[in-house]
Amino acid sequence: MTPEERIEALGLSLPVVAQPVGNYVPALVDGACVWTSGQLPLVEGRLAATGSVGDDDGLVSPDLARECARIAALNGLAAMAGSCGGLDRILRVVRVVGYVASAPGFTAQPSVVNGASDLMVEVFGEPGRHVRSAIGVTALPLGSPVEIEIEARLR
Amino acid sequence: MTPEERIEALGLSLPVVAQPVGNYVPALVDGACVWTSGQLPLVEGRLAATGSVGDDDGLVSPDLARECARIAALNGLAAMAGSCGGLDRILRVVRVVGYVASAPGFTAQPSVVNGASDLMVEVFGEPGRHVRSAIGVTALPLGSPVEIEIEARLR
Amino acid sequence: MTPEERIEALGLSLPVVAQPVGNYVPALVDGACVWTSGQLPLVEGRLAATGSVGDDDGLVSPDLARECARIAALNGLAAMAGSCGGLDRILRVVRVVGYVASAPGFTAQPSVVNGASDLMVEVFGEPGRHVRSAIGVTALPLGSPVEIEIEARLR
Repeated sequence: MTPEERIEALGLSLPVVAQPVGNYVPALVDGACVWTSGQLPLVEGRLAATGSVGDDDGLVSPDLARECARIAALNGLAAMAGSCGGLDRILRVVRVVGYVASAPGFTAQPSVVNGASDLMVEVFGEPGRHVRSAIGVTALPLGSPVEIEIEARLR
Repeated sequence: MTPEERIEALGLSLPVVAQPVGNYVPALVDGACVWTSGQLPLVEGRLAATGSVGDDDGLVSPDLARECARIAALNGLAAMAGSCGGLDRILRVVRVVGYVASAPGFTAQPSVVNGASDLMVEVFGEPGRHVRSAIGVTALPLGSPVEIEIEARLR
Repeated sequence: MTPEERIEALGLSLPVVAQPVGNYVPALVDGACVWTSGQLPLVEGRLAATGSVGDDDGLVSPDLARECARIAALNGLAAMAGSCGGLDRILRVVRVVGYVASAPGFTAQPSVVNGASDLMVEVFGEPGRHVRSAIGVTALPLGSPVEIEIEARLR
């Protein structure tokens, strides 16, 4: 199966890539590498959730935040596919950074960022394993609960 | 026009590069890549502003923060020029990360980091477009409102 | 002296590498580069300290946080050694990012991250100098006060 076929088998599909408003690009190929810009959990132009992640009422729950990380990562795959000509050009995922807008005291960032890491392995298999950092931050663009960067190596 | 000539045409000039106090360097060339350390909006050794960015009184305004991002990015260009022998060696800008010290509720990090992204395109034209992340954080060194990292590819 | 001999001369030893619970790896070699995942100051599976860094009572002191950065960086060296076959394969350290869980008002992130930067130079000499960013964040996995990423070039 190709990565695109695996995405379909997961019941997902690569979304249309949102074009940045500023002087930057959604993803960039340089040599044998492809990088994404920080990806938000946008679904048809709207964030799947907004706010800080935590366990208390009124916050984005860790489960919802993990799903947001998965959506952001799927957007990242779409951005990479658009810039490199298709996900079957990706030899391996190298690095994922997950930023989690975190309420005071919330320290389960890894379980949130697993939403992105798991998708990489579901789509690419073993070559989807990567180095990763999970970071709890104050706030993210538009009030997003997560932001995901992906770096990969091309064939 | 060379990048240095474009900088002059913008009414700017590459500042003297501040030498880090610690065991690191302002910028580093390895193979065909050049990276900067996180750059602060220092002007002649002093931060152009200090504090968190937000809309309320007593905070660094988004407009001032965007100008700080531009200054930090200019410092990054100076650091890159010093390590690679001149900005005309840069083939393209690959990646910019912008950290914004953010007051609670401030989520317009992208408009702040545009100060750095815009400078890249003003100086390098289309090859100045890059992937980018904008992140809202708690605090930055010396109380800086912004910190900018740049990665570029050399000819 | 090899890097491993220098580590021993410093009175340190490379710890056993903790295997991530999620779908990622402690370190990854791709081409001539090696990257670590974000490293925590784990000692035999437990964090050397937890909490935010600052000057007030009840916070992790800057001195303890610097020691934590050193421990996290040592864990990163162990992860790199395990993935690339030994630290003598490392030609130079390229980049270190240090995230510091910061109490409001704490802006001495650089002195904390020096714990990682200094270790790089103690172990690798001049080729240990790198570009670096020091970032103050809200919270880190498991309540860690610091998280350190390392990128290096192989021979």
